[in-house]
Amino acid sequence: MANDTLEGNRHRGIPRQGATPHSLIHAIQGTLADFLAAQTASLDSIDPELGGFARTARDLVLAGGKRLRPVFAYWGWRGAVGEDEPIEPVLPAFAALELMHTFALVHDDVMDESDTRRGHPTAHRIFGRRNGERFGSSAAILVGDLCLVWADQLLARARAPQGVRSVYDRMRVEAIAGQYLDVLGEAEPESWSVERALLVARHKTASYTIQRPLQFGLALSGLAHPEIDLAYGQYGLAVGEAFQLRDDLLGVYGDPSVTGKPAGDDLRSGKPTALLMLARRLASPAQREALDTAGAVNPADGSGGLLEKAQVITDTGAPARLEAMIQERVADGIAALAGAPLHEDARAALIELAVRATHRPA
Amino acid sequence: MANDTLEGNRHRGIPRQGATPHSLIHAIQGTLADFLAAQTASLDSIDPELGGFARTARDLVLAGGKRLRPVFAYWGWRGAVGEDEPIEPVLPAFAALELMHTFALVHDDVMDESDTRRGHPTAHRIFGRRNGERFGSSAAILVGDLCLVWADQLLARARAPQGVRSVYDRMRVEAIAGQYLDVLGEAEPESWSVERALLVARHKTASYTIQRPLQFGLALSGLAHPEIDLAYGQYGLAVGEAFQLRDDLLGVYGDPSVTGKPAGDDLRSGKPTALLMLARRLASPAQREALDTAGAVNPADGSGGLLEKAQVITDTGAPARLEAMIQERVADGIAALAGAPLHEDARAALIELAVRATHRPA
Repeated sequence: MANDTLEGNRHRGIPRQGATPHSLIHAIQGTLADFLAAQTASLDSIDPELGGFARTARDLVLAGGKRLRPVFAYWGWRGAVGEDEPIEPVLPAFAALELMHTFALVHDDVMDESDTRRGHPTAHRIFGRRNGERFGSSAAILVGDLCLVWADQLLARARAPQGVRSVYDRMRVEAIAGQYLDVLGEAEPESWSVERALLVARHKTASYTIQRPLQFGLALSGLAHPEIDLAYGQYGLAVGEAFQLRDDLLGVYGDPSVTGKPAGDDLRSGKPTALLMLARRLASPAQREALDTAGAVNPADGSGGLLEKAQVITDTGAPARLEAMIQERVADGIAALAGAPLHEDARAALIELAVRATHRPA
Repeated sequence: MANDTLEGNRHRGIPRQGATPHSLIHAIQGTLADFLAAQTASLDSIDPELGGFARTARDLVLAGGKRLRPVFAYWGWRGAVGEDEPIEPVLPAFAALELMHTFALVHDDVMDESDTRRGHPTAHRIFGRRNGERFGSSAAILVGDLCLVWADQLLARARAPQGVRSVYDRMRVEAIAGQYLDVLGEAEPESWSVERALLVARHKTASYTIQRPLQFGLALSGLAHPEIDLAYGQYGLAVGEAFQLRDDLLGVYGDPSVTGKPAGDDLRSGKPTALLMLARRLASPAQREALDTAGAVNPADGSGGLLEKAQVITDTGAPARLEAMIQERVADGIAALAGAPLHEDARAALIELAVRATHRPA
């Protein structure tokens, strides 16, 4: 596919050191922008209302984010092919992961009734402004559906050897399954546990954000490397769980200006995260009672009860235990790469990503 | 893929006369059942809750229906390849359309807040029984998502020549776009018109139910037949619109035991169908006032206002006008087939389907 950004950069190439090469993000953004411009124009030509619908979807895609899944897919691919392989034939596949991710975010936000995402109003809130809440949810469900189909269309433009689609399909099914468990846990928090929260983390985050994108990148190389595949699997699960555990901590203690989500969002929704489940397990009887009642939010400012609850969680020692679990997983993930016949720049980048994706923001 | 039903029938084959060959439906059902058994087992092995989730999705798929989209795809394919081509390599592709259709139905039902579908509780009602309405909607959104991904996986098992995926993608985008317009019309009925209702019918029903499935079938043949493609396009749009207009009439006058939906469902939801838009256009000032006020439903039995409104619609002459539009479109659709180099059994079947899919139930 035509991609001005990348073709203009062809001879400079994508920097091969550093965990998040700036021009890779730029090239993915350019691929998405070109693809979405064409899709939006095509729907606009059927009916201007469809053009508006498509443009809202486009803006949601282009507004994000760290592009973590394309970045992992890139390094998964680079780790197998080395530094000289041109990126153009596989770039649409990396970008497709971001479209697929927008599908997941938009649907998740409908389910969680979230108001903001990445500091901006969520899709259902944007549409809700026009015709109320029910229309907002319906339109957002459809935006998600559209992004999932668009992802497929963009993937079809990549040079995708045998095996790419099956990794992609596994990733999609696991993401949906993980989200189902997530929703179930929120609906039945009394039946949840640390173990079940980690199961959610494994499917919803580890597999979907790191493990499968890496293996998807490897499949895009067209090379059979069982040792690399295994290493990516182990690294992805370990670092992905660590990533989710960090997210749990940020969901309670995070700075809204960094997370893009309201402070104490997870506490407000009562999400049975690994952090909360561990706090309940470690709590003294008095702490457990405080945990179960302190959630009563001050209706005036919505914050009082949350701060108190966060303090009780800290007092149980759960956050410190989670920090240790994160460090252990990051170390395991990095160790898993050691024996695999990976190209060195990719190994270095994945080590750096493991640390950066799971570190405590200053 | 293994398919006992079909393999058992191999030497008897699929009957090649008649619009809805019974053993075709049977073979599609068998393909779906085999595929879904494997997917369900795989999710169940991760976690029993995921098994339950997948089984609910499976039951929704297997409970339907007329399998109209696979049937049109079958005849679209048969029209190009003739009667001797074995069906096994393309059967998963026909069945995939039914999985895709379940995705569309389940999401539509969430958006419309429908209680029943095909006489059974809708997905969000089934899940809602367990944990309330919000959980019900979330789980149903995920069931729809899962069916869309499953459809892709099943399609990947078919022998699909170049071009199949692009017809498939167009069909999916059009179905989503048509549903967006449908939802928009319901949210802004005052801005709607006969023309906009027909635009919805064209995308949501004609393209998605008939035109693209036929062209998808043709693409599966791997044969380039521009004349057949054009004929399928014209037939599909004309018959598909007629099919939607029939549905509009059934939505007001249909027998719930035949439609599987509550009587007067469209009137209750205030859906701005072509029928209602035409009635408003044809109405006298007194009739228009009655149309705008008679919708006030008797809270005791929920029916009084609807019967009155249905009578006013009849009095405007709109239903008779719609009947004429249906006949005209069916005739146009059949005429479009006349010049195309179609195999005769397919032409005969498509003529019969045009009549049967749009006829007034006794």
